Amino acid sequence: MKEISGGVCAPKGFRAGGIWCGIKASSRKRDLALIYSEKPCTAAAVFTRNRVKSASVLVSQKHLERGICRAVIANSGNANACTGEDGLRAAKKMAELAADLFAIRTDEVAVASTGVIGVPLPVAAIESGIESLASSLRSDESGHEAALEAIMTTDTRKKGGAFEIEIEGKALRLGAMVKGSGMIHPNLATMLGFITTDAAISREMLDAALRRAVSRSFNSLSIDGDTSTNDTILVMASGLSGISPIETKGEAFEAFAAALEALCVKLSRDMARDGEGATRLLTVTVTGAQDEDSARSLAKAVVSSNLVKAACFGADANWGRVLCAMGYSGVDFDPDHVDVSFAGKAGVIPVCKEGAACPFSEEDAKKVLLEDEIEIRIKAGAGLGEAAAWGCDLSYDYVKINGDYRS
Amino acid sequence: MKEISGGVCAPKGFRAGGIWCGIKASSRKRDLALIYSEKPCTAAAVFTRNRVKSASVLVSQKHLERGICRAVIANSGNANACTGEDGLRAAKKMAELAADLFAIRTDEVAVASTGVIGVPLPVAAIESGIESLASSLRSDESGHEAALEAIMTTDTRKKGGAFEIEIEGKALRLGAMVKGSGMIHPNLATMLGFITTDAAISREMLDAALRRAVSRSFNSLSIDGDTSTNDTILVMASGLSGISPIETKGEAFEAFAAALEALCVKLSRDMARDGEGATRLLTVTVTGAQDEDSARSLAKAVVSSNLVKAACFGADANWGRVLCAMGYSGVDFDPDHVDVSFAGKAGVIPVCKEGAACPFSEEDAKKVLLEDEIEIRIKAGAGLGEAAAWGCDLSYDYVKINGDYRS
Repeated sequence: MKEISGGVCAPKGFRAGGIWCGIKASSRKRDLALIYSEKPCTAAAVFTRNRVKSASVLVSQKHLERGICRAVIANSGNANACTGEDGLRAAKKMAELAADLFAIRTDEVAVASTGVIGVPLPVAAIESGIESLASSLRSDESGHEAALEAIMTTDTRKKGGAFEIEIEGKALRLGAMVKGSGMIHPNLATMLGFITTDAAISREMLDAALRRAVSRSFNSLSIDGDTSTNDTILVMASGLSGISPIETKGEAFEAFAAALEALCVKLSRDMARDGEGATRLLTVTVTGAQDEDSARSLAKAVVSSNLVKAACFGADANWGRVLCAMGYSGVDFDPDHVDVSFAGKAGVIPVCKEGAACPFSEEDAKKVLLEDEIEIRIKAGAGLGEAAAWGCDLSYDYVKINGDYRS
Repeated sequence: MKEISGGVCAPKGFRAGGIWCGIKASSRKRDLALIYSEKPCTAAAVFTRNRVKSASVLVSQKHLERGICRAVIANSGNANACTGEDGLRAAKKMAELAADLFAIRTDEVAVASTGVIGVPLPVAAIESGIESLASSLRSDESGHEAALEAIMTTDTRKKGGAFEIEIEGKALRLGAMVKGSGMIHPNLATMLGFITTDAAISREMLDAALRRAVSRSFNSLSIDGDTSTNDTILVMASGLSGISPIETKGEAFEAFAAALEALCVKLSRDMARDGEGATRLLTVTVTGAQDEDSARSLAKAVVSSNLVKAACFGADANWGRVLCAMGYSGVDFDPDHVDVSFAGKAGVIPVCKEGAACPFSEEDAKKVLLEDEIEIRIKAGAGLGEAAAWGCDLSYDYVKINGDYRS
């Protein structure tokens, strides 16, 4: 598996572009993105589990029912959520505008939005920009970059990437872009992720690979059920790599699924690092849990604890907060058999052994905790379950960013 | 029902005191408290549901098995949690030291601790201070104040109170003290609450009244299961008011339970207002839910949302975050039938009607949101369930306080 350039345009058959059409009224930053496939793609997606769903999510869920997709149109600056019937009409209109460009079916277009909730989507701005959006499409990295910029909100870094693997002696590519940075507490910000691949794969196998990858990556950034109104992760497979279609779980499926997971983990780490106000990346690894799900729940409880996050911001080796967060995770474990270490480039500092303090140098711990990347390493018992979760510290800037987001 | 002075010393038969014995090594602030009843009391308590329980919680749970209590000894500056066998011995020793003072049974003493996790409790400091702790006992407000100061950690206000009601023409009193201020996110800080009363009441009825009151007050500050290692709420009833013992659910029980609930709600609001770094008190009221539990879950999800809290700090009428938090609460409701208003002394500002925006003056909303107390008023549908939850805004100071708590 090797990293390649091109992002969502790296796999064969995809073009992407992005423009400013006026939804972000004050900034003139790009706010409208399009990804287009020359062939109809097999598609799979996961959407927010929030009971309050944006109009774009509702429309995309309907459009993707057949498992076929040729284009995604996405906007930033407006979530098109809590916007009632008008919002639904606006989301459908977005899909129609994109479909008309290529004379494809409206339900072959997925729609995504991110931004402020409860404000009507200025669909006229999208309509007036649709032609220049079409002209902005490129089949190289520049197209990827423009589209990626157009879905960003409080993101401070561009988060995308592409991998190439070999199957049957042929190159198979996967590319992706994501936006989302409010991961400092998990329920907070919309996450949009668009993944392209030139794999030939059945809808069922694509869905299985996506669900596994998401549970081990993006979902380990956030607590189950704690999702925004707009979260969307979509994968489109053009089939143009020339490999034989993946229709069952065999060697080819596992190779594809592993590459998809690796891409999603990379982007999850990028998102955690780009958490609103984040100064450091926090990885929590749990081993010794009863099973993978228990390990993940423990890791997520710790990485989501405001107190743990604030302690990491302050480079304070407050391991008691780690145990406390494990304790309210709902997972069954014996506190007397928990070990905790803080790990970084400067070393590994065991701070808790069998549920109680073990002596450590505060100075050495400080050194580790001041690094850009901190790992909290937990042994939760003698089980075989292990998992990782990612997050970031809780800083003054988080409060600043979220104290007056709308203005 | 009238408010009276005296705190936990207001009901007949109680004395209280507090000293500095050296657990808070650097500050010389009071760190050891004692509440003593001249008669054996009927007792009921609720403890943390965290899987990781402090030694003091484990010992108190055991001691209260018979439902009888004559004294509480409590320390601040050290949580005695994650301290292993030594911690259990230390907690038992605390109870013994208090029991020896009055020649009472060790299991008639409850123990409570709050402070840093994972550091051995300096039991020698307690031992050396126990005589002066005994001499500090007073039967008036000064005793209450000294004990209350001795259980405070990051609290910035003293939180206590007392009520008097009349039953059978006789005065019945309830007094209380609480500590806890990390309620800005619900899972974070230890809450200790000690309630005294001179009611004559059976253990079963006392337990029922306490559980009802706690669910409508302190538990509406926090998400179920998200509790610290040390949370303890204890009520002791001396019986000295001279009323006939309350042994069944009748008029007297309801009067007592209502007074207990009112006291607990008052202290919950005080705790929310004293949230770490809080600049304003946030009350979320939900009506129209399917039942009381659903209403409470919705209210708690909203009051606990970092995004809602940060918006309140920034006086930003971002009602979309309110709907988003309701959406991930796990409660069944129809987003299209939700109304939201922000209310304060300056007026009531409807911001969302039937799940969508309704026009409002940003200026008027700002006026309300800049007040010391903000109410978010939610109608979740056409049901009969209603409940309230309390919290506070999320400020820069929260991060500051929690970034380096141990040093």
